[in-house]
Amino acid sequence: MSEPKTKTITAAVLVIGDEILSGRTKDKNIGYIADYLSAIGIDLSEVRIVPDVQDDIVAALDALRHRYTYVFTTGGIGPTHDDITADAVAKAFGVELYEDQRIIDILLQRLKPEDLNEARRRMARIPVGGTLVENPMSRIPGFRIGNVIVMAGVPTIMQAMLDSAAKDLETGTRMIIENFDAHDLPEGAYAQDLGALAERFPDVSIGSYPSMVDGKFRNQIVARCKDAGQLEGARVEINAMIARLTAERK
Amino acid sequence: MSEPKTKTITAAVLVIGDEILSGRTKDKNIGYIADYLSAIGIDLSEVRIVPDVQDDIVAALDALRHRYTYVFTTGGIGPTHDDITADAVAKAFGVELYEDQRIIDILLQRLKPEDLNEARRRMARIPVGGTLVENPMSRIPGFRIGNVIVMAGVPTIMQAMLDSAAKDLETGTRMIIENFDAHDLPEGAYAQDLGALAERFPDVSIGSYPSMVDGKFRNQIVARCKDAGQLEGARVEINAMIARLTAERK
Repeated sequence: MSEPKTKTITAAVLVIGDEILSGRTKDKNIGYIADYLSAIGIDLSEVRIVPDVQDDIVAALDALRHRYTYVFTTGGIGPTHDDITADAVAKAFGVELYEDQRIIDILLQRLKPEDLNEARRRMARIPVGGTLVENPMSRIPGFRIGNVIVMAGVPTIMQAMLDSAAKDLETGTRMIIENFDAHDLPEGAYAQDLGALAERFPDVSIGSYPSMVDGKFRNQIVARCKDAGQLEGARVEINAMIARLTAERK
Repeated sequence: MSEPKTKTITAAVLVIGDEILSGRTKDKNIGYIADYLSAIGIDLSEVRIVPDVQDDIVAALDALRHRYTYVFTTGGIGPTHDDITADAVAKAFGVELYEDQRIIDILLQRLKPEDLNEARRRMARIPVGGTLVENPMSRIPGFRIGNVIVMAGVPTIMQAMLDSAAKDLETGTRMIIENFDAHDLPEGAYAQDLGALAERFPDVSIGSYPSMVDGKFRNQIVARCKDAGQLEGARVEINAMIARLTAERK
């Protein structure tokens, strides 16, 4: 057996928030995190969106954190009663929450001591064993415990926290991606050949993605692989297939 | 015991597609379905995004279809080898796929018989016991089996199928929603009072949603309830709270 040439690191995203499920807020974090992780060599493998219900959050955390290298949560870490992510994460890990003095200090830099009320102190509660995830955007940090990284839901703040968390993440081999425009070929015209081609390249993930532009289908083929050599083999064959089928239809 | 005044119908969305997880395609269906279901009185309660892997799709289907009134899937019903949703749904229900002559007829209206290849016939495969979900946009239908509604991933087609499927859905009491602008109040200034208020209205779902506009936080409070009377009680108190706290800060 030779050493594997590629390394795979996986992740899941857990979006916590009634406001996404009700339609009030349109999620902008999933697509951002998907792009971000792809770029640094982490394979996003599953996403779940759950409501602000502790049992649901704990169940999702437990399902995801045992299966994937990392779990990124977004939402539910503010000062209000519906912000229950820290409690849920602590419960999933079977630990208590403590009040982190570093976060209290950050809060006191912007608040008068008499304004540091119980609700605001909630934002300083971190599960025992957790480490802080810096937030250059609005200062109050997220946290990481084990393989779970807990971030804010507000996109600009989430993005700042993701930058901070990424410094300590193990990353794998980046997926290399080739896009192919199928031009006027309908999916049904190349589906059979593409399926046979995909079987010849089992380590290359090959997909066909239709979209509608001005009422007409426009199809793209995408090939993804961590090994440049295998991807190159598939690339040559896909281009040849598109050229051949396009010529046949003329 | 009096009769319950409200009726709850729940749903989950299962997005099937490597292209969403890789970041290549940004999902536009979750937010649309969330709004749509809210408007017709169905509570979207969970969303999952899984890759084009049959075991993962089957596991998610089984977790969701036993828990929620309906499950809506998007993606994976085209003619190419990576379109495996029908197979996964059939496996989850323990039934075979059959070739539906009505879909073959639709395909033959636009194709020469010699172009009706094996790949295109894949789109006519429906799990035994399934019913068709009409697609006025591009004709080839989705399907429904039990409480699972299987739709395309292309947003305009998904939307057309959702319109068709909705005619046969049981709907519940619509959630009534009140939005409150917290103006210049920081969350930390009202979190404690809002938490106490939320405890007095256990049937009203009250959330606080910060967003960042031009680098400044802007907070909204949202109260949701199916009972107009209870919501009105919460509405009066939330408005009074915002007015009082705003006056105190001046």
